[in-house]
Amino acid sequence: MHSARSTTLSEVARRAGVSLTTASKAINGQPRVSDEARARVLKAARELAYTPNRIARSLMSGRTGTVGLVVADSDAQRFVLPILLGAEEALSEIDLSMIVSDARGDRARLRRIVERFADRQVDGVLVVGDNNTSTPRIGRLLDQPVVYVYGETGAADVVHVPDDLGGARELTEHVLAGGRRRVAVVTGPREARAVVERVRGVSAALADAGLDLAHEVLYGQWSQRSGRGLTERLLAAAPDVDAILCGSDQLAVGVTEALRGAGRRVPQDVALTGFDNWSVFAVESDPPLTTVDMNLHTLGAGAVRDLFDMIDGRPVGAGVRLHRCSVVVRESTG
Amino acid sequence: MHSARSTTLSEVARRAGVSLTTASKAINGQPRVSDEARARVLKAARELAYTPNRIARSLMSGRTGTVGLVVADSDAQRFVLPILLGAEEALSEIDLSMIVSDARGDRARLRRIVERFADRQVDGVLVVGDNNTSTPRIGRLLDQPVVYVYGETGAADVVHVPDDLGGARELTEHVLAGGRRRVAVVTGPREARAVVERVRGVSAALADAGLDLAHEVLYGQWSQRSGRGLTERLLAAAPDVDAILCGSDQLAVGVTEALRGAGRRVPQDVALTGFDNWSVFAVESDPPLTTVDMNLHTLGAGAVRDLFDMIDGRPVGAGVRLHRCSVVVRESTG
Repeated sequence: MHSARSTTLSEVARRAGVSLTTASKAINGQPRVSDEARARVLKAARELAYTPNRIARSLMSGRTGTVGLVVADSDAQRFVLPILLGAEEALSEIDLSMIVSDARGDRARLRRIVERFADRQVDGVLVVGDNNTSTPRIGRLLDQPVVYVYGETGAADVVHVPDDLGGARELTEHVLAGGRRRVAVVTGPREARAVVERVRGVSAALADAGLDLAHEVLYGQWSQRSGRGLTERLLAAAPDVDAILCGSDQLAVGVTEALRGAGRRVPQDVALTGFDNWSVFAVESDPPLTTVDMNLHTLGAGAVRDLFDMIDGRPVGAGVRLHRCSVVVRESTG
Repeated sequence: MHSARSTTLSEVARRAGVSLTTASKAINGQPRVSDEARARVLKAARELAYTPNRIARSLMSGRTGTVGLVVADSDAQRFVLPILLGAEEALSEIDLSMIVSDARGDRARLRRIVERFADRQVDGVLVVGDNNTSTPRIGRLLDQPVVYVYGETGAADVVHVPDDLGGARELTEHVLAGGRRRVAVVTGPREARAVVERVRGVSAALADAGLDLAHEVLYGQWSQRSGRGLTERLLAAAPDVDAILCGSDQLAVGVTEALRGAGRRVPQDVALTGFDNWSVFAVESDPPLTTVDMNLHTLGAGAVRDLFDMIDGRPVGAGVRLHRCSVVVRESTG
């Protein structure tokens, strides 16, 4: 695959002095093209050694040059667009197109989408979702290669996820290197994969340093409101806390507000970190947040590379591929 | 098009007891299907009166059942996903697929995407962008129908945009109905279409009520930081202001912080409004923001409906279609 770039229809159209659509109609024997234009297009196509159109080619090759991307659930919509655009960029570099559909967490809808993908004979499928364990096994419905992105599936699939644990561990090491010793965690729902992995990363770094958490992990929702409420509880129970590691940038904004309300300065009294590097929070917060970037664009592109190999029949083992996260240091950790 | 739902490949596969992909290969005469499976699939297809696959159908009908969506610029990425998903839902209801590409504000890239769309013979194109006036005229490259969404083009195209003016006017009327009389505007870049239209809407409502602005419009960036800085200037110049209408929810969060820092209560001393109904700001702000929802999902679906008509050859006049915005009332206006 990925053959050297051949003559495009656009070059044919330019040479023939007609629009792309006219060129396409002429090449494909469709009506509403003047005989004169058709003759010029066919002449230009011969001169440029243009291969007949993709649809005719696909009937010969058994490939459509199209990959289906389905958004399995909408809990993670904020994460979908960068993954989608990263995948699209990687696909377009080798002249593949992406069909996008949104299942909105609905299994019946997901099934219809997969049927549509099959009907259109996509060459492969990307499944983007937060909670792919609840996704029906798409691989059972389709023989085409399937790669899961962002969420794990809990089964023997090819899965690309951010290395949340590694990112949280590195972030914690940065905070400890700044001299903080009484570290607390304020995070999202207890059952979310990202929450579990990030807490494990913090714990691993603290254990390496021979430290315990200053207070048991405070679980809540992904919201500023939750960050405020949990911080009030934390300050009442562990007033000597000197670092708060938040499960997301959005939570960290609420934590900042509660700290300010309690007269604690960031970072002088309490170092603060977020997670996500979502600029509307991380950059705009006062002070700007030290956080972790999941490099979602790269994650989408990486998943596409595995999918290419599978489409081309190269062996790709099942398993979870962790993508490195980057710690981004700003003023909130001093 | 929009024909009554016919037998799907999935139904054929189910009847034949094979996977969707096997059914597809069998129907399309591709290799790697056992003779026995092929026979069962073809029998099931006959029994269910299944029409041959979409690719073969498209060669006959001259249509591919595919619409291209290009993100023209990335300034408005936060607005892209709801528009894209609204368009996708409207398309999937009539069994069309959407190919997505991102031009990232790059004209050369946009041109390549349009070439790819032509090569794939899409039936029509949606262009989503903030600033479509700077977009090369895609209609000159393609004969297929093109509909522009979110930004205006400044030319004779079919364009779907939110009614920012109407939304801002209705929002202002709500604030005036609450008894406020000294109204100021804190907003984004002076040249942005959304800024211009929203300011016009505020001015129209004030003029209807025989009022002037309490201070000239304060232009800045789309950020909390800008909201803070502009509010400090505003309070110094017009300390008796009793309502601040912000160009976005994100700006309103910064304005809230600056008001709190100056000891002004929202809404008791100053009524405050945002724009966008972006829940991470509008719902999470303290107090939650009265704002305007642009109904972007509906906007995407509306653009698709015009595109359908154009693909089907029904007359659709060029011009700007305004989509109604909704005022969402929360605590920040009392």
